[in-house]
Amino acid sequence: MSEPAAITRKKTRQIRVGNVPVGGDAPVAVQSMTSTDTRDVKVTVEQIGRLEEAGCEVVRVAVLDEDAALAIREIRKAIRVPLIADIHFSHKLAIAALENGAECVRVNPGNLGRNKIREVVDVAKACGASMRIGVNSGSLDKELLAKYGGPCAEALVESAMGSIAFLDDLGYREFKLSLKSSDVQTMIRAYRLISEKTDTPLHLGVTEAGSVLASSIKSSIGIGILLHEGIGDTIRVSVTGDPTVEMTIAYGILRALGIRKVGPDIIACPTCGRCEIDLAPMVEEVEKKLAGMKEYLKIAIMGCVVNGPGEAAEADIGIAGGRGLGILFKHGKPVRKVKEEDLVEVLLREIEAMKSKRGSP
Amino acid sequence: MSEPAAITRKKTRQIRVGNVPVGGDAPVAVQSMTSTDTRDVKVTVEQIGRLEEAGCEVVRVAVLDEDAALAIREIRKAIRVPLIADIHFSHKLAIAALENGAECVRVNPGNLGRNKIREVVDVAKACGASMRIGVNSGSLDKELLAKYGGPCAEALVESAMGSIAFLDDLGYREFKLSLKSSDVQTMIRAYRLISEKTDTPLHLGVTEAGSVLASSIKSSIGIGILLHEGIGDTIRVSVTGDPTVEMTIAYGILRALGIRKVGPDIIACPTCGRCEIDLAPMVEEVEKKLAGMKEYLKIAIMGCVVNGPGEAAEADIGIAGGRGLGILFKHGKPVRKVKEEDLVEVLLREIEAMKSKRGSP
Repeated sequence: MSEPAAITRKKTRQIRVGNVPVGGDAPVAVQSMTSTDTRDVKVTVEQIGRLEEAGCEVVRVAVLDEDAALAIREIRKAIRVPLIADIHFSHKLAIAALENGAECVRVNPGNLGRNKIREVVDVAKACGASMRIGVNSGSLDKELLAKYGGPCAEALVESAMGSIAFLDDLGYREFKLSLKSSDVQTMIRAYRLISEKTDTPLHLGVTEAGSVLASSIKSSIGIGILLHEGIGDTIRVSVTGDPTVEMTIAYGILRALGIRKVGPDIIACPTCGRCEIDLAPMVEEVEKKLAGMKEYLKIAIMGCVVNGPGEAAEADIGIAGGRGLGILFKHGKPVRKVKEEDLVEVLLREIEAMKSKRGSP
Repeated sequence: MSEPAAITRKKTRQIRVGNVPVGGDAPVAVQSMTSTDTRDVKVTVEQIGRLEEAGCEVVRVAVLDEDAALAIREIRKAIRVPLIADIHFSHKLAIAALENGAECVRVNPGNLGRNKIREVVDVAKACGASMRIGVNSGSLDKELLAKYGGPCAEALVESAMGSIAFLDDLGYREFKLSLKSSDVQTMIRAYRLISEKTDTPLHLGVTEAGSVLASSIKSSIGIGILLHEGIGDTIRVSVTGDPTVEMTIAYGILRALGIRKVGPDIIACPTCGRCEIDLAPMVEEVEKKLAGMKEYLKIAIMGCVVNGPGEAAEADIGIAGGRGLGILFKHGKPVRKVKEEDLVEVLLREIEAMKSKRGSP
């Protein structure tokens, strides 16, 4: 059977964010950002712990003041993943964050200006740290806005190319780049344009993507289209609210595109008039019980015994409901009949057995 | 300011599903399917009413037996949008559905066989109805599965091309085509291949896409990538559970790609450590209050007064929260200060004013 054509990734240079390689042939790294007050070490570490559990590979924290920069020292000790300090207006905070152990700082040259960026680069070099150059449509300089008449893709790209040239002149290559816009089409266009001009590893994201559902749509389209074209070395889905759901969306995108096969792929039918059981709560229960599962497995939860197993023949394992009696099936073939009320339990038990047989991914 | 390049749609022929044109230069039509027992006219009509309210333009109902086919006559009278009867194994039910007023039938030639399809086509011609040829990876015939070693994109396309040729021979052109797979990559590949071979209008969807979040990811990627390439004339997002949320996702996809600017585009920041207010419930409230709004408006809900208005300069209107006091802004410019507890109310009132000023879309 012919497999879908694999995605050919555009060649970028590889940098490191702590021990996580980004770019080149490294796996597309999944990032998140805390929503806590960074100065509150306990709460921040706790949230990062949940993010790590959910698959976060690099975490960013906002650094608003000296206390937040100082808190990084304690946070750093208590977490496993590399930490990026998010800096908006103060290069002194960037430097303090690096000195306190941040593996990377995210700065926006549009906000800081070149002399201050130079100082940050000097410290980053000394610390062996990397940087993210974050160009945002909201902070383009006035000349560019005037030239292009607004924050379009071309303006983002010109701004970014200026920063790249400046860092190149400083002999600093340990940086990645983001070109964020809340407009999905602008974002897609900007990353496409820049990927033809530079080998800088690219951090993809749609900014201010909104609620869970709004963000999952915008991020899946923006990040998904670019990754599908081979563009992008690390991704961040941004969601208003608790960031752990960002991991669900990020890995869902990577899984759908076949880029990283991590976690359960749960397929379930849309409960048409044929559906003989109440499917949505079953899907919800299985999703909840399997949260955090790293092993890739295609799991089907189908509403009718007649069409279910055939329609979900591609699933490794599945259940199909029927009034009173459903079936368990594997690779489209019925294995045995199961009482309706036991379907979820049997499915979960069989998944456990499959996991231990396969071993860790 | 340069606008993102508009999508050039692949040229397809135009058909009609009732009064809704599909294909050619018609807007990409948004479909859904009921999750009710079609025989229960009251419940089905009620659900279709909610779907219409949410923007559904064509609705499909499952027809499992004679009573369901008969129910179409009553349902048809009580709803505004065209109705498609979903048929799996019985051509007699397809014919009965057409005779009872369904504007279109969805049949799977892999399940019915050619002689029976011919009978359905005769009735469709007589009724002036259209058809959807639904090829699914779960119901490919054995020869194709053997030839290709499994339900791959090429097998779906070969099956579909056979059906197209057969209908062409019958002189019947009022049909559209779907090639569904629960595997996003297979689905993308299949539609790409077929769109080069035929001018048949294409119905896009990822089948068995799962829960709301899982489906929004898979559908946004699968449908989104294809629409972005100009492929697709009508779409259906399938979600396990209440189908009204399918409309939210479908219009979210179309809006993100700039294909149909319908409804509010709510951008909101991901509540980093800078956020001064509890943003997620505010976003949720605004989304809820604006549910069903058809007018396109870019609305920002931002967590801090310093960065908010600038980062959301592309928004038509927005609020940025601050402790105790936030601001209302339009196109990135502060309009006035607003007490924190009044922010949402003021925003909603201003949106109402903007809507009545602009008039209906």
